[in-house]
Amino acid sequence: MSLALPKALEKLIEKLERLPGVGRRTAERYAYDILRGSAGYAKEIADSISGLHESVKYCPVTFSLIEKDDEVSPLYSDSSRDKTTIAVVAQPFDVIALESTGEYKGTYHVLKGLLSPIDGIAPEDLTIKELLERIENDKVKELILATSGSVEGESTALYIQKLLEDNKKITISRLARGLPVGLDLEFADQITLSKALEGRRPMP
Amino acid sequence: MSLALPKALEKLIEKLERLPGVGRRTAERYAYDILRGSAGYAKEIADSISGLHESVKYCPVTFSLIEKDDEVSPLYSDSSRDKTTIAVVAQPFDVIALESTGEYKGTYHVLKGLLSPIDGIAPEDLTIKELLERIENDKVKELILATSGSVEGESTALYIQKLLEDNKKITISRLARGLPVGLDLEFADQITLSKALEGRRPMP
Repeated sequence: MSLALPKALEKLIEKLERLPGVGRRTAERYAYDILRGSAGYAKEIADSISGLHESVKYCPVTFSLIEKDDEVSPLYSDSSRDKTTIAVVAQPFDVIALESTGEYKGTYHVLKGLLSPIDGIAPEDLTIKELLERIENDKVKELILATSGSVEGESTALYIQKLLEDNKKITISRLARGLPVGLDLEFADQITLSKALEGRRPMP
Repeated sequence: MSLALPKALEKLIEKLERLPGVGRRTAERYAYDILRGSAGYAKEIADSISGLHESVKYCPVTFSLIEKDDEVSPLYSDSSRDKTTIAVVAQPFDVIALESTGEYKGTYHVLKGLLSPIDGIAPEDLTIKELLERIENDKVKELILATSGSVEGESTALYIQKLLEDNKKITISRLARGLPVGLDLEFADQITLSKALEGRRPMP
């Protein structure tokens, strides 16, 4: 692109620009920051990136990210977790978010995305087939559809609910929508407020 | 940080968090994007990062970034460039910005930062000493202080101007401040408008 930049730096900038949400300027800042840092730090980050695919794989049951040497997710093999309850999430990092509450004792199922006709993501691109098999195998009693409140999150939840319409042995729920703790009413958006009204609960 | 994440992934996220302006969530997105991409892309980006320090160095005269095999910046060794004019910039990428105008035929001097007492950046941390030597050696006639209009940019420019107060052979200028081309008056901030008024020019 420019005579004024060394080739190796230009090449790195082009690679960094492929990361999600990273434009030319941000890629330049990252590359320059790595260059100004020590060669040791650059080697550490390079090793972490090149070793990633060898060290990490998807759990064949829950599709969480796990160590290459693990057979299944430790959150699934752990005998204290209730295998008849599954929280269905879009991405592996959603598992971490739910785990951080420390209150969920069931297992997880990562869909690896959300339905999105615009982006060409159809049911067969997600792990829905595997979820249905698991519901049979583990005699699942409760399914928590923990996808986001976006159009894609809602329609994926509805799609899965429809598939299980005839299964009378399973309870299907959705995470509650409402006011985030600590948010003043005046700062909440209309849709969140409507959901909070709709889902109002009697005081104990 | 969490039981739910493979170690290699956690390590990469921690490394990526050290990049400027990158928090935990962004680092997670980058790491997951690299993981979802091919192992080939991961290797390419890793090689680019690990090879960077070996392939790139600072020009010993202008402090631009240059190829390891070059002695000085091609923008300096180029005989068609006027060595008696120097544009003083903060960072190597500023050179590219000015070069992209295609109108500047002088040379550059990269300060490698701006004065900032708060961040502990003093004159001796920048390449100011080398700039003064160059002004002598190359019999420089014009210095364009092309640092930004920030507090640090302004005070660095003032500092250099003061150092050269007694040098009557040199003309010192600053990039013009004013309305960006294409910006409507109503969208300009007050300081930019003040500068534009202050620097108003008679019509030809």
